[in-house]
Amino acid sequence: MSLKMTRDELTRFLEQEFPQVAGDFAIEEVGDMRVRVRLLVGVRHLRPGGTVSGPSIFALADVTVYLATLAMIGPEALAVTTNCSIDFMRKPTAGVDLIAECRLLKLGRVLSVGEVLIFSEGLEAPVARASLTYAIPPK
Amino acid sequence: MSLKMTRDELTRFLEQEFPQVAGDFAIEEVGDMRVRVRLLVGVRHLRPGGTVSGPSIFALADVTVYLATLAMIGPEALAVTTNCSIDFMRKPTAGVDLIAECRLLKLGRVLSVGEVLIFSEGLEAPVARASLTYAIPPK
Amino acid sequence: MSLKMTRDELTRFLEQEFPQVAGDFAIEEVGDMRVRVRLLVGVRHLRPGGTVSGPSIFALADVTVYLATLAMIGPEALAVTTNCSIDFMRKPTAGVDLIAECRLLKLGRVLSVGEVLIFSEGLEAPVARASLTYAIPPK
Amino acid sequence: MSLKMTRDELTRFLEQEFPQVAGDFAIEEVGDMRVRVRLLVGVRHLRPGGTVSGPSIFALADVTVYLATLAMIGPEALAVTTNCSIDFMRKPTAGVDLIAECRLLKLGRVLSVGEVLIFSEGLEAPVARASLTYAIPPK
Repeated sequence: MSLKMTRDELTRFLEQEFPQVAGDFAIEEVGDMRVRVRLLVGVRHLRPGGTVSGPSIFALADVTVYLATLAMIGPEALAVTTNCSIDFMRKPTAGVDLIAECRLLKLGRVLSVGEVLIFSEGLEAPVARASLTYAIPPK
Repeated sequence: MSLKMTRDELTRFLEQEFPQVAGDFAIEEVGDMRVRVRLLVGVRHLRPGGTVSGPSIFALADVTVYLATLAMIGPEALAVTTNCSIDFMRKPTAGVDLIAECRLLKLGRVLSVGEVLIFSEGLEAPVARASLTYAIPPK
Repeated sequence: MSLKMTRDELTRFLEQEFPQVAGDFAIEEVGDMRVRVRLLVGVRHLRPGGTVSGPSIFALADVTVYLATLAMIGPEALAVTTNCSIDFMRKPTAGVDLIAECRLLKLGRVLSVGEVLIFSEGLEAPVARASLTYAIPPK
Repeated sequence: MSLKMTRDELTRFLEQEFPQVAGDFAIEEVGDMRVRVRLLVGVRHLRPGGTVSGPSIFALADVTVYLATLAMIGPEALAVTTNCSIDFMRKPTAGVDLIAECRLLKLGRVLSVGEVLIFSEGLEAPVARASLTYAIPPK
């Protein structure tokens, strides 16, 4: 299957459709059923002690599967998350960005399923893992 | 088991330990293994169309199980989420708060498990359900 | 919404479509978006020590949401589980049946979502909780 | 970290501790934080149409993370599953075994977390994915 959206197209789409959060994320790489996204960690993502908050990690996992899905099917702003399971495994390192590596495991007519590993930049052991399902609106 | 923290004590604890987000939440009721929390929906929680964002719903579920756990064990800022499973079932109504009803199903020495139903205020059908596990630090 | 299948019809449907496992389960009560199912615990469900195995608990949760869905939509053998999240919270009591209480939280055109609490008969604290999503085939 | 149990030791441990199910599984490969396990599909695992049942897929995911954990910590029969999230993505092929590839993402003092991809033998697209948490008993 070929990509329906490039990295630049996904970045512009995010800026247009989700202007409140587009500045939080940098799309680093887009491939077949894969995407890598960076959370540009700022003060609003932090908890006391400098660690990144759970909701910010969730938001990163969520946008990453969204973008991986759109890269394959084209700009469908109305794709919605139906389920997420997330394991928080280690405290993120203070003062560094988070990097999410997503792989789509299924891209069906109605549902897409992706899994995500999230890393503090520069560390090998993942901070969190997540799996998400998106419902794709009928054409 | 008797409550270790009242509603007022939980509210003050949230303000002291999590000043960035305490203003988002109003603890409405605290009971034995139960708590009800309101997300005071503001512009920063919204997506285009006026619906509450997924990360905001996650944040509400997360804080609710945290507060239900602390009500039973006392102020343990270091309790951490280890797992969350969340189902997004309906689009939240625009312009109204979200209400989370949490019940703790397990309160062990090491882990607590809670389930949460989240409603748009005034509607009967839930917007989302979540189940979360917290790891409780050893004394 | 009215029920499309009674308890007896669901029992017969299970016997016809899933003869391998129908004898494991007794449907105890069927209501609007609700069902209660008993796992008739036998030797094949046990682990050393007399506790019910994880896969048997999963099977009970799974069939319960299936039956709750069919009660509402009619006999659709082809409805399939797409996701399950399950928390194992306590060791089941040896030598007693398990009882699953299921509530459907969503019954959409394409997906149904149910939550299940599972109890060792006679005990108040649940052994497990689960949430499952079924995909409903198009007519 | 070095392995505490070889493939042969894990196989014998399974036969001794779980004689009811040990014959269902063949441990194919054991590595650092990794294991590959085969479900020897028999009639008792099937549903009408010849597809492998959901509980059998769950059982495979469950035993695989158990074995990956024991390989790292040694024979701890009492490690117990606390959480599983599983996505069923494709119907298994009739008449072939299932292969589970597990990777441990975290091996803590109290909890281990593993993720599993499950394949019908010979097919590239996974049938299911799962993530599981085990609680490790204190020494």
